[in-house]
Amino acid sequence: MSIRIGIYGYGNLGRGVEAAIRKNADMKLEAIFTRRDPKSVNILTENVGVYHADEALKMTGDIDVMILCGGSATDLPTQTPALAKLYNVIDSFDTHAKIPEHFEAVDKAASEGGKTAIISVGWDPGLFSLNRLYAEAILPDGKDYTFWGKGVSQGHSDAIRRIEGVADAKQYTIPVESALEAVRSGKNPELTTRQKHTRECFVVAKEGADLKRIENEIKTMPNYFADYDTTVHFISREEFEKNHSGIPHGGFVIRSGYTGINNQNKHIIEYSLKLDSNPEFTSSVLVAYARAAYRMSSEGQKGCKTVFDIPPAYLSPKTGEEIRKSLL
Amino acid sequence: MSIRIGIYGYGNLGRGVEAAIRKNADMKLEAIFTRRDPKSVNILTENVGVYHADEALKMTGDIDVMILCGGSATDLPTQTPALAKLYNVIDSFDTHAKIPEHFEAVDKAASEGGKTAIISVGWDPGLFSLNRLYAEAILPDGKDYTFWGKGVSQGHSDAIRRIEGVADAKQYTIPVESALEAVRSGKNPELTTRQKHTRECFVVAKEGADLKRIENEIKTMPNYFADYDTTVHFISREEFEKNHSGIPHGGFVIRSGYTGINNQNKHIIEYSLKLDSNPEFTSSVLVAYARAAYRMSSEGQKGCKTVFDIPPAYLSPKTGEEIRKSLL
Repeated sequence: MSIRIGIYGYGNLGRGVEAAIRKNADMKLEAIFTRRDPKSVNILTENVGVYHADEALKMTGDIDVMILCGGSATDLPTQTPALAKLYNVIDSFDTHAKIPEHFEAVDKAASEGGKTAIISVGWDPGLFSLNRLYAEAILPDGKDYTFWGKGVSQGHSDAIRRIEGVADAKQYTIPVESALEAVRSGKNPELTTRQKHTRECFVVAKEGADLKRIENEIKTMPNYFADYDTTVHFISREEFEKNHSGIPHGGFVIRSGYTGINNQNKHIIEYSLKLDSNPEFTSSVLVAYARAAYRMSSEGQKGCKTVFDIPPAYLSPKTGEEIRKSLL
Repeated sequence: MSIRIGIYGYGNLGRGVEAAIRKNADMKLEAIFTRRDPKSVNILTENVGVYHADEALKMTGDIDVMILCGGSATDLPTQTPALAKLYNVIDSFDTHAKIPEHFEAVDKAASEGGKTAIISVGWDPGLFSLNRLYAEAILPDGKDYTFWGKGVSQGHSDAIRRIEGVADAKQYTIPVESALEAVRSGKNPELTTRQKHTRECFVVAKEGADLKRIENEIKTMPNYFADYDTTVHFISREEFEKNHSGIPHGGFVIRSGYTGINNQNKHIIEYSLKLDSNPEFTSSVLVAYARAAYRMSSEGQKGCKTVFDIPPAYLSPKTGEEIRKSLL
């Protein structure tokens, strides 16, 4: 019997989950929930119902795991606790500073509902977090570094688009190669914000806009750009659509540490991702953790979990015997 | 209260465990067991007893987790099941093909004894296995590759030393850079043994030995060298000791896979290790998993586990709250 998945929120992430389910033979897309008029939403899978979000309250018998595909700013802080009372849920809540309070709220709801919830699933938080934890536990005498990119930052792109005279914009976060190399060499450098990443912006300006002013507003924008070396390129709408329509991302988690009675030996652990599509990859992680939530719930485990709490075997459709034989 | 660790077998790995325990404030080395005369063994830690291996049967009240540091060929297949009846145990059994039968034997013993055993802990099997599993679960439509090196293969070095006229030898396994690049590009190449790794040998010959014959015997040795491009360097004893006394190793696990409704997006997950000391790094992994075994045993979990079964949080000395705040 397949694991019946519900998708709650049908944007880039929801469409990614829809595609990812097709790669997993033990799963079945059961329903998609949207706050829009369901009749206006065209999905990619045949014979699957699209329902208004309010209907989710009534379909608890049909769905084994609900994957929440809303945003961390305003959607998930209310949606995940609300739905965790009714369903096993997965979300990709990624506001690092607010994870503890989100965890508390979801834990309370899932415990009350007798459901399993897994929050902050994706690649960062998610796979990068796992790698920080494994590496720190193995090399306690060491230091870890996270670099992001090369990839599109949605938040920074949005910030540029809000500037007067900007028609469209895309911002790439780029790790500084020399900083990466210094970390990989095991030198444990102290790196400032500016030394770790640069920001490259591709901007389509409106006709007659003051390019100098736009560039200056970008480069001096506090929090977003002022602390970075930022490059601004003004390009045509055609070039923008041809070369900057994707949502690639990726990054690196590197830990260097020392072992030996006299700290004489150095070790470098590096994990990296290079992703053509940030939302599709995040969706693929969500789907794997949906399998884990289903299994943990079947075993009677209740409450809120994170990637740290999930035995890796629960992510695989294979049996314990199969994974020991083929992957160990 | 500290977790009391016993070390069973005091070679390179045992000494590595001894050093690694010092990096973990929640652990304490309680005893070292050896098959040699305990009086002949000098250890690096003060006020810790060295006992004959036979004494291990009598010290079950003093040790929370026994870390087995013997070899996979002849030691662990008998030692791990025998000790798993009495202690929570960790081993680094690494004969991939025999893992299923080792698992069965240890599971039976640990279940009978009411203990927790974790086998095949290290970096391969171990961390590399974890990365193969995570990556496959997330990108089911893909292919993974494991490369080893640059590093010393003990087995291959031993094989060379058995050749007549060889005084000493060290063999390095080296991944082929162009193969790594082809994999990283997402081309999913089919690679032969010869295309993935080369083998480089540094040999100290005995006075008057026939170097041509030695080189030929190495390069044509079945299983070990015949399927590889092998380079042989004859060097002096001095150079050997100066430049080839370490036991470095490392490697790469890379998976590339596709997502999207039309498989239009490609993703690369790469995990790599660069280790100055293979045994010390392996020891550090063993010690982190000893913490997990202690905790799982405290919770009443019994039987044989592998890295796939261990929730990552169990490896860290930090609380769930701390890791969610600092690492997620």
